[in-house]
Amino acid sequence: MHDLVTSSLPDIQQSPDRRGVAIERVGISNLRYPLSVLDREHGSQQTTATLALSVALPAEIKGTHMSRFIEVLSSYQGVLSTQSLPEFLARLRERLKAPVAQIDVSFPLFLGRAAPATGKSALMDYTCALSAEDDGTHVDIVQRVEVHVASLCPCSKEISDYGAHNQRGRIDIAVRTAREADGTPSMIWFEELIELAEQSASSPLYPLLKREDERHVTMAAYDNPAFVEDILRNVAVRLREDARISWFDVGVTNFESIHNHNAFARVSWVRPGA
Amino acid sequence: MHDLVTSSLPDIQQSPDRRGVAIERVGISNLRYPLSVLDREHGSQQTTATLALSVALPAEIKGTHMSRFIEVLSSYQGVLSTQSLPEFLARLRERLKAPVAQIDVSFPLFLGRAAPATGKSALMDYTCALSAEDDGTHVDIVQRVEVHVASLCPCSKEISDYGAHNQRGRIDIAVRTAREADGTPSMIWFEELIELAEQSASSPLYPLLKREDERHVTMAAYDNPAFVEDILRNVAVRLREDARISWFDVGVTNFESIHNHNAFARVSWVRPGA
Amino acid sequence: MHDLVTSSLPDIQQSPDRRGVAIERVGISNLRYPLSVLDREHGSQQTTATLALSVALPAEIKGTHMSRFIEVLSSYQGVLSTQSLPEFLARLRERLKAPVAQIDVSFPLFLGRAAPATGKSALMDYTCALSAEDDGTHVDIVQRVEVHVASLCPCSKEISDYGAHNQRGRIDIAVRTAREADGTPSMIWFEELIELAEQSASSPLYPLLKREDERHVTMAAYDNPAFVEDILRNVAVRLREDARISWFDVGVTNFESIHNHNAFARVSWVRPGA
Amino acid sequence: MHDLVTSSLPDIQQSPDRRGVAIERVGISNLRYPLSVLDREHGSQQTTATLALSVALPAEIKGTHMSRFIEVLSSYQGVLSTQSLPEFLARLRERLKAPVAQIDVSFPLFLGRAAPATGKSALMDYTCALSAEDDGTHVDIVQRVEVHVASLCPCSKEISDYGAHNQRGRIDIAVRTAREADGTPSMIWFEELIELAEQSASSPLYPLLKREDERHVTMAAYDNPAFVEDILRNVAVRLREDARISWFDVGVTNFESIHNHNAFARVSWVRPGA
Repeated sequence: MHDLVTSSLPDIQQSPDRRGVAIERVGISNLRYPLSVLDREHGSQQTTATLALSVALPAEIKGTHMSRFIEVLSSYQGVLSTQSLPEFLARLRERLKAPVAQIDVSFPLFLGRAAPATGKSALMDYTCALSAEDDGTHVDIVQRVEVHVASLCPCSKEISDYGAHNQRGRIDIAVRTAREADGTPSMIWFEELIELAEQSASSPLYPLLKREDERHVTMAAYDNPAFVEDILRNVAVRLREDARISWFDVGVTNFESIHNHNAFARVSWVRPGA
Repeated sequence: MHDLVTSSLPDIQQSPDRRGVAIERVGISNLRYPLSVLDREHGSQQTTATLALSVALPAEIKGTHMSRFIEVLSSYQGVLSTQSLPEFLARLRERLKAPVAQIDVSFPLFLGRAAPATGKSALMDYTCALSAEDDGTHVDIVQRVEVHVASLCPCSKEISDYGAHNQRGRIDIAVRTAREADGTPSMIWFEELIELAEQSASSPLYPLLKREDERHVTMAAYDNPAFVEDILRNVAVRLREDARISWFDVGVTNFESIHNHNAFARVSWVRPGA
Repeated sequence: MHDLVTSSLPDIQQSPDRRGVAIERVGISNLRYPLSVLDREHGSQQTTATLALSVALPAEIKGTHMSRFIEVLSSYQGVLSTQSLPEFLARLRERLKAPVAQIDVSFPLFLGRAAPATGKSALMDYTCALSAEDDGTHVDIVQRVEVHVASLCPCSKEISDYGAHNQRGRIDIAVRTAREADGTPSMIWFEELIELAEQSASSPLYPLLKREDERHVTMAAYDNPAFVEDILRNVAVRLREDARISWFDVGVTNFESIHNHNAFARVSWVRPGA
Repeated sequence: MHDLVTSSLPDIQQSPDRRGVAIERVGISNLRYPLSVLDREHGSQQTTATLALSVALPAEIKGTHMSRFIEVLSSYQGVLSTQSLPEFLARLRERLKAPVAQIDVSFPLFLGRAAPATGKSALMDYTCALSAEDDGTHVDIVQRVEVHVASLCPCSKEISDYGAHNQRGRIDIAVRTAREADGTPSMIWFEELIELAEQSASSPLYPLLKREDERHVTMAAYDNPAFVEDILRNVAVRLREDARISWFDVGVTNFESIHNHNAFARVSWVRPGA
């Protein structure tokens, strides 16, 4: 074995363990690393990720070899995506001699956003994440996005002579993809989930708004009031309609502009038969 | 109904909804409030909590009445505990006219800790949390503690002529309690989970250590090396032995003193037959 | 000396140091502890604080005795306030044999807030903080409050046919108090700074609002638009008018409901002659 | 003016203000954006930054034009550095018609680090930051680095028969650069500050350590004990010796492995005559 060749020092981790506790995940977390990720418009983009890499540890082995996670990661040259994750996890399983390998990676994705009236464009950041587990027979992948939006309160609008309280909110979407006929996971762009979220609120947010744009956004939000429950349901209805999705968990949080606490709503769903 | 009596303004939340999405949780979050919690030594202690309160919303109703969560909370005078939660959730269900009510509350619990040699004592903080759900027939309660400890690396000790890297770590324990013969949930003190965690690491932490104490703690940790996997297994073995516990999820994180990232391990377990 | 009486172990901290670097602050931080603080309505209230305690260390001494900070804190029984801080710092200076002692303490203060139409009341949390330094001849005290408010954009209101974007914002006020004729620091209640902040924005926030209240708050904010610059200036004008204040630093941050970034403004000021 | 050409909507921000409060900073914060930064080994590296951009606002003007900050940033194509900041700030001042412009930008910098025995290399992240202000006659620049290190307690080592508590710590360095004979600011690489910090602690951290390396690091830290005060003084002595530095502020925090709180020390310094 590699480590025995390079070292005459004892390998405590390989000692037997008799407590009878198989460990689901053991590894490293809170690791920042530069990565390339998929970008629908430009092919890929360079970003900075925060990662956890782990493996399952059988009950009879004392410890895993933590340095190997870094070795696999630092030798990886590809673009991280739902398509490339299976190969990455296979490398982890092989290098760690583990039955199961897992990855959790989150990163900002920067997308160009054009203002609604002037068309002026700038980049906006969206936190995206991938969680995947390879148990040797199957690779399970969950994609997540955090999308900030504007919500305008229908109750406030209805009961007031003028105005309506509105605020920034956050939509958290997690989806598990179904499989295509050939067994590969369906492809869903982060960009698709982000657009779906933005279309489910009172208004999207924008990085750059001139006065004409601000007028447009102000009135569009007023014309489209939505409770936290409405935004959640708008997202849920559209995710259910997408056959590529076998499971989802959606949360919506409004940073209420009339309260010091937040309003939130949450729902999860499994496609019947999935 | 209360709100119709006090107001002639339209109640948009009571409008029908046709999207067909029942919502699992809708309510308020990130709310700070002063609360009394159980304290094994002193009966109760005053602390400051962060809460989320929510209900399930049937598919056919547009929205919940957010202000009622605050009304129920602000009228509550009791000591929050696994024993008093069922009554609190029953009030939420009734006031919100909801089939299911949930609470998530976390708070610092301050416990006296005596130094191991001099016996000098001071308070140490532990973050504790309760999550509970009442669906009308059953109240499900999960207790959580975050316990900081010291871990000393067995590999570093074994392969080095002197010294061993050690570090602060965190043990996160979540347990679901089984039921007694009379159907009530078993009583588990947060203090019990905290002590179990502290005994599972290389050494507990202390708020106040004089030199004699520091000598004691230094050598005790060196005499008791433990990988992140060892700490996790020590905790898991003891939780499995406790018949009051029907499920647990345990995570251990070491803030490695040789790396800029963390080492972690995690396992969950359901009591057979539970 | 105390530590030599109780211990025969060497006192490394008392070794001489020849690097010629006097240290401004050395001590402990990120310490959570329960404390009583002043409450204008009820005399005092119990809360949970996060503290840093430190001393200055002369260039020729190697180290301070960290455990003594905890000893002083854990033996303290009083209500922490601008009035009691000088005695607390004097104890720290004496116990640590230090020329200068400092404290930084922050905590949630809970105040009853009545809804503007129904009068229904509940508690709202405000993060307050005290920083103080005793150099043996003078005790310098800075009080801080974080107050969340609502802001409604004047530009959005003016350029739109209806509606106006609004959002939650945060006002951060730090003030240094002047001295009365007898040399004692002027008394300023946290409650005064909080009210001043709330009156400087488009609307205060409330913990509990029924529909009549929500109507009131919605229209009051629309009637009182304010840029982040306006809120800052409203606060600054009032602080300058208060002769008890010798210095201030104010920041305002709006969590824009049309953008994914914040708007902010900041100004500091010293009373001429102070 | 640009905005009047593109819009017939009223420009509320340009209204006069009579409160007499000149604002030091008004702008945008918490903005994430992809940026290129200097890299001593590779010329530049792509990273993701968090920015605040602001200007001073004269007392007689009501508001600034927030969208222009994004316009300047999104049109910027260069590598951000102490060398390029003056031009960037000049653009901000011109576009915002402001007397003073400021930037605060922080980002992870990834540097290759080789293990001390095997030489195996991987990337490690360091949070770096630049704060700069251009008041029309002068550009003031402050560079900051956060460097995580290991510290081993000299007291614990001395008073114990074996072992010594050690832990991860963080060194925060801020420096203001002096000017060269031609008036330009001196060039200091972030890499230089990072190395200085790593050499001032008991041991640097590493991203990748095999067993031979772990043995080396364990014993090196034991051979090099340092209090939080020692690390601070080691850094301060070296910064004072560097004629390119006219001011510094240094903080060291140890995440104590025997306590649930941290130990910290802090000092600032101005070069005599600077």
